[in-house]
Amino acid sequence: MSGKILIVDELATNRIVLKVKLSSAYYDVLQAKTGADALRIIAAECPDLILASAKLTDFEGPTFIKAVRKLETTAKTPVVLILPSVKAEDRIAALSAGADDVLCNPLDETFLLARLRSLLRQGNIDKDLRIHAGTAHALGFAEVQGHFQRNGRVALVSRKQNKAMALFSALSASGQHAFVALNAESAVGLAEGTDVPDVFILGIDSEDVDDGLRLLAELKAARRTRNCPIIAILEPSSRSLAATVLDMGANDVMCGVEDLKELLLRLSNQMHHKHMADQMRDQLQLGLNAAVIDPLTGVHNRRYALPFLKRLIDTLDHETETFAVMVADLDHFKNINDTYGHAAGDQVLKGVASQLRASLREDDMLARIGGEEFLIVTPNSTRAQARQTASRLCRIIQRTPISVPGRMDPIGITISIGVTMAVPGAGCLAPTVESLLDQADRALYGSKAHGRNTVTVCALSAA
Amino acid sequence: MSGKILIVDELATNRIVLKVKLSSAYYDVLQAKTGADALRIIAAECPDLILASAKLTDFEGPTFIKAVRKLETTAKTPVVLILPSVKAEDRIAALSAGADDVLCNPLDETFLLARLRSLLRQGNIDKDLRIHAGTAHALGFAEVQGHFQRNGRVALVSRKQNKAMALFSALSASGQHAFVALNAESAVGLAEGTDVPDVFILGIDSEDVDDGLRLLAELKAARRTRNCPIIAILEPSSRSLAATVLDMGANDVMCGVEDLKELLLRLSNQMHHKHMADQMRDQLQLGLNAAVIDPLTGVHNRRYALPFLKRLIDTLDHETETFAVMVADLDHFKNINDTYGHAAGDQVLKGVASQLRASLREDDMLARIGGEEFLIVTPNSTRAQARQTASRLCRIIQRTPISVPGRMDPIGITISIGVTMAVPGAGCLAPTVESLLDQADRALYGSKAHGRNTVTVCALSAA
Repeated sequence: MSGKILIVDELATNRIVLKVKLSSAYYDVLQAKTGADALRIIAAECPDLILASAKLTDFEGPTFIKAVRKLETTAKTPVVLILPSVKAEDRIAALSAGADDVLCNPLDETFLLARLRSLLRQGNIDKDLRIHAGTAHALGFAEVQGHFQRNGRVALVSRKQNKAMALFSALSASGQHAFVALNAESAVGLAEGTDVPDVFILGIDSEDVDDGLRLLAELKAARRTRNCPIIAILEPSSRSLAATVLDMGANDVMCGVEDLKELLLRLSNQMHHKHMADQMRDQLQLGLNAAVIDPLTGVHNRRYALPFLKRLIDTLDHETETFAVMVADLDHFKNINDTYGHAAGDQVLKGVASQLRASLREDDMLARIGGEEFLIVTPNSTRAQARQTASRLCRIIQRTPISVPGRMDPIGITISIGVTMAVPGAGCLAPTVESLLDQADRALYGSKAHGRNTVTVCALSAA
Repeated sequence: MSGKILIVDELATNRIVLKVKLSSAYYDVLQAKTGADALRIIAAECPDLILASAKLTDFEGPTFIKAVRKLETTAKTPVVLILPSVKAEDRIAALSAGADDVLCNPLDETFLLARLRSLLRQGNIDKDLRIHAGTAHALGFAEVQGHFQRNGRVALVSRKQNKAMALFSALSASGQHAFVALNAESAVGLAEGTDVPDVFILGIDSEDVDDGLRLLAELKAARRTRNCPIIAILEPSSRSLAATVLDMGANDVMCGVEDLKELLLRLSNQMHHKHMADQMRDQLQLGLNAAVIDPLTGVHNRRYALPFLKRLIDTLDHETETFAVMVADLDHFKNINDTYGHAAGDQVLKGVASQLRASLREDDMLARIGGEEFLIVTPNSTRAQARQTASRLCRIIQRTPISVPGRMDPIGITISIGVTMAVPGAGCLAPTVESLLDQADRALYGSKAHGRNTVTVCALSAA
């Protein structure tokens, strides 16, 4: 099935007519006679979309939508309300209550089906995003907040400059959002570094339809604008074009702007949608980052570090290319935990990690690979450079005592470092993750044995 | 800019004509006269798409494409070859070499621009997926493999049954892929549990264009088919429709099937694309999972466990609702490491984790929160049930010694468990993550003090 749609209408004839239309478009159809019936079915069946008459025996249309929005399972399910009249004030009431769209009887079948496809397509994209964002939420990142209205940036794009300017002035006077008027070139060709609008309002003139559709396709294809919702505004005479515009990827469509309030409500809907999707995309990235970051110190973790080292070894091929592998261990760290407590110990680990990170080059890799043990990999280093870097790190840590909460004096700490060099080699001479870590570990023992706060470079490694 | 396109053509006039067309569609245009020039520019500038004449002074078209595919940065960049003739064999040679599409001179500007938009749109989706999959790769998951040809499932959908069946027989005889012929209803209304095809071939009849376009929009909107590439086959007389079909989301389009080989090559292209995208989506999920899983034992990690506990506390609201928090610690684990080595110790941790997981209910949460310490949270448990569960876990671990490589006899191990109950409470009586972990820890110390291999339930917790 391509989607499960719930029809809510008190008249059996209306339900039957709609059911025939939707079934012939391969949808699974559920039916409810009253709002109360509908809420029961929604809770049990989780439809993908709700198509409800605005005249129910037990609910006014807007009240019904608010009740649906309160159910946790369908808080984000698209709801389309079917109005008996074409009155702008009814449309506005329904949109204010949270309807995703309003249609008027008699229904235009082609447009109805295009509108349902468009809402279901959007719903499916959101569902995927929510599943991923869910993992991020499981990690304790803040849940996506969808409850408050936010202003955003809106671009008006149109060929007809006089019409566009009138709309631009009216919208700007609304006090909501920041509006900017763009011509086609500056909309699609947004320069790098320019703020990308959150939502596009795209005027399509009846005299220049092909041009308008091309611009729509371009906005949906271009890297920087493809995630921006588009509201297409057609002329009242171009109603037959509305279905095509939705199927080409517009998120909403209006034939003429009878009442500016309606456009502002549709704009708020899209703005809300855009902010939710942006937040979910951010959470996805946070979730992915969490897999490779040590939560205490914010540097990479062991899980990231070992494959990184493996990849670096795999790309070693020129004789002249060498890199250094260092293991740095805090000296007498157990004493700090025992003397000042675990919280202070954690603070010291964070402080050392941040000192090390600040003292390394951007290409150098720093990871916490054990309780008080850090791995440092410095690509394109000679043995002399590596020794110099390691000695510098020891000096910096020694010179920078770390403040901890609840103690006047910062705590002094030192580190010992073991260094080994990775050089190209064939067969049993080729370095491996294990051999490099083992050599660096032995060198580290050397530093510990020689009184700590010092650097030992492994004699085994060539170059 | 909406994309950076490299034009490769030895004739300045051709380059200028193309540059004007592309610039007016807001693309950034780069130019190269020869294949060698082009390869230099590609390496330096990483264009989003390459549009090359098949007649270069220094390269044959197919050879040029192979050279582009060898560059790491552009191995996946779309390449469109412009042929001087309409000969099927030239198209087939270019597609075999890895061209994403071939166009014939003179170029139809509307179609050219729609084709570029379609390839760039697809390229942008892939780029996003690759960035995410890249994090998974950084974690050491196998890199997406795109080098071998794979067969897959292909669905042919068409209204014209006789034509479709002829094509179906011919394709089936190719020995590649598994083909199935579907009518519109079974294509869009694919029942749950049915195998979804990898690629759709959609026949659009000139007599029934609206119906064909609607089916295309439905396949692109429906949850189960929206990630499947679609190759639209128009009748030779419907060439003007090709641009629309691409803008509506078709991934490739042919006007008539002159040579079956060409369709099979285009099919392989899309199949390849689909497999890459599927692998990248899988890696994205793996990357996200990695953030919440302890890599040694495969159970949840501390990062997942603490927010989980927090959420469970937040939803505690009925008097009758209680859950148990247990901390389980391996007894004398240090001895195992010291006696048998770290590898054996790791094996024991894995064995214990897997025994615990197998002995808990699906809703129970198990996480490794320290070296040899596990956290168990059992929702909807009474104190008596929790004590019973914990005692059962102790018995199971004691009775199941763990085999380790290099030792004949499996190693016996026991665990000690501390249990506390979370019950609803207000103000300072409300449980917190810290208070519950602290109580469970104290109970654990009780078990350790009472000879280990035993369970202590915290006396503080109510219920």
